[in-house]
Amino acid sequence: MTARLDLEYDGTEFAGWALQPGRRTVEAELRRALETVLRAPPQALTVAGRTDAGVHASGQVVSLAGPPPSPSSLNALLPADVAVLGSAQAPDGFDARADARSRSYVYRVLHRRARQALERRRVLWWPRRLDRDLLHACAALLPGRHDFTAFTPAETLHRHFRRTVLAAGWDEQGDELRFTIEADAFLRHMNRALVGTMLEVAGGRRELAAFEALLAGAPREAAGFTAPPHGLCLTAVRYVVPAPRLTPAGAATGSSRST
Amino acid sequence: MTARLDLEYDGTEFAGWALQPGRRTVEAELRRALETVLRAPPQALTVAGRTDAGVHASGQVVSLAGPPPSPSSLNALLPADVAVLGSAQAPDGFDARADARSRSYVYRVLHRRARQALERRRVLWWPRRLDRDLLHACAALLPGRHDFTAFTPAETLHRHFRRTVLAAGWDEQGDELRFTIEADAFLRHMNRALVGTMLEVAGGRRELAAFEALLAGAPREAAGFTAPPHGLCLTAVRYVVPAPRLTPAGAATGSSRST
Repeated sequence: MTARLDLEYDGTEFAGWALQPGRRTVEAELRRALETVLRAPPQALTVAGRTDAGVHASGQVVSLAGPPPSPSSLNALLPADVAVLGSAQAPDGFDARADARSRSYVYRVLHRRARQALERRRVLWWPRRLDRDLLHACAALLPGRHDFTAFTPAETLHRHFRRTVLAAGWDEQGDELRFTIEADAFLRHMNRALVGTMLEVAGGRRELAAFEALLAGAPREAAGFTAPPHGLCLTAVRYVVPAPRLTPAGAATGSSRST
Repeated sequence: MTARLDLEYDGTEFAGWALQPGRRTVEAELRRALETVLRAPPQALTVAGRTDAGVHASGQVVSLAGPPPSPSSLNALLPADVAVLGSAQAPDGFDARADARSRSYVYRVLHRRARQALERRRVLWWPRRLDRDLLHACAALLPGRHDFTAFTPAETLHRHFRRTVLAAGWDEQGDELRFTIEADAFLRHMNRALVGTMLEVAGGRRELAAFEALLAGAPREAAGFTAPPHGLCLTAVRYVVPAPRLTPAGAATGSSRST
């Protein structure tokens, strides 16, 4: 059996998702809670999006071996900044990372002169010039398959730099601008470097044509700054609905699921 | 001269607005910053809404004597959880408390089974039964002038308990329910006791007719629980536009303003 967990967390006080010796991470907290509930260390645990330090998630997905553990038992053990939203049986062999077809992120920007207080852990405050038409024009260039080398640190473990953006766009709600992007996968820091570079274009500090050129595999130093992590949130992961598997008797079994 | 400041703050780590010896309060932080910027203690400082410990504000208003201080100077001195949104010259003698015609608050409730993590400082998690029609029916009873004795602590400094609700209603955005209320003024804990009592009606634990009866001056113990402060936010204060004052020469002067 394989279980699927859906999680939300406030990344502010975490050193990111992945286990790191001596650091407080979401994975460490989840493994500790699972070990208590399962009375054994979790097996074959994978995650859809390995978020960086300070990045939030409202739709993170994890898979692990075994029957689905009780969300309320896990939530009673987890700290206040991580919550299990759901736990369900997944198709045998379901892998939250390998089976994901796309991840969606949102980056929030508060564009106003006055400093903020209320949403300071969730939204980037950006008091500088920002041409909204240029933001939209940048986002419109993103869908498709591109080489994002310019948007990930030069010292990288990635070996392939092409990713497919399925959708990207900015929307506005008063002073707040939200960048939504869905891609098959993301390079490390890719979202934050995209946002930082788009803010530079929208501030008149680089040309729209230069932004487009970055998508063809320019070096990291050709792109803009890496926007801070606290504006970013992993909001959804999409999986294909598995085809029903046939039992020897020919009856359809297996749970189907789409996200 | 009189100055008007517009403020936002995250109430989580404050013991409320008002000065209290040995406690961290918004007023204490603001007075400290003003004293540095003005090089003297602020004079005649009043506030529109004396929020309780843990209650947030996105539209708090303060008045004080003198020319408007620079928002950026104040923001550089204030801690991250308080921000000055604006500073302007107000009509002579403007009093943020006495001149306010109404205050508006929003109380946010997350109605779902799963515990939350991301908005845990801003939204009440409410996993119990909640009949949304009953919430709407409760709110529809609130506009008008009522005796709110049942919705404020029995040991009170208030001497008058009638307040006029100008507007009240619940709206829904997915799992989130938001209660918005505008009144001429509020008794201590009034919003939170109203929300707690409405949640009890919507959970089937008290009758809608009993809720209506509470608005005629029942004792505190007749109403429901006081919902926790972290779901509540002061969002706006309304002032009348002052009539232009005539100078001896007959020319119109004075700034007019509406909020």
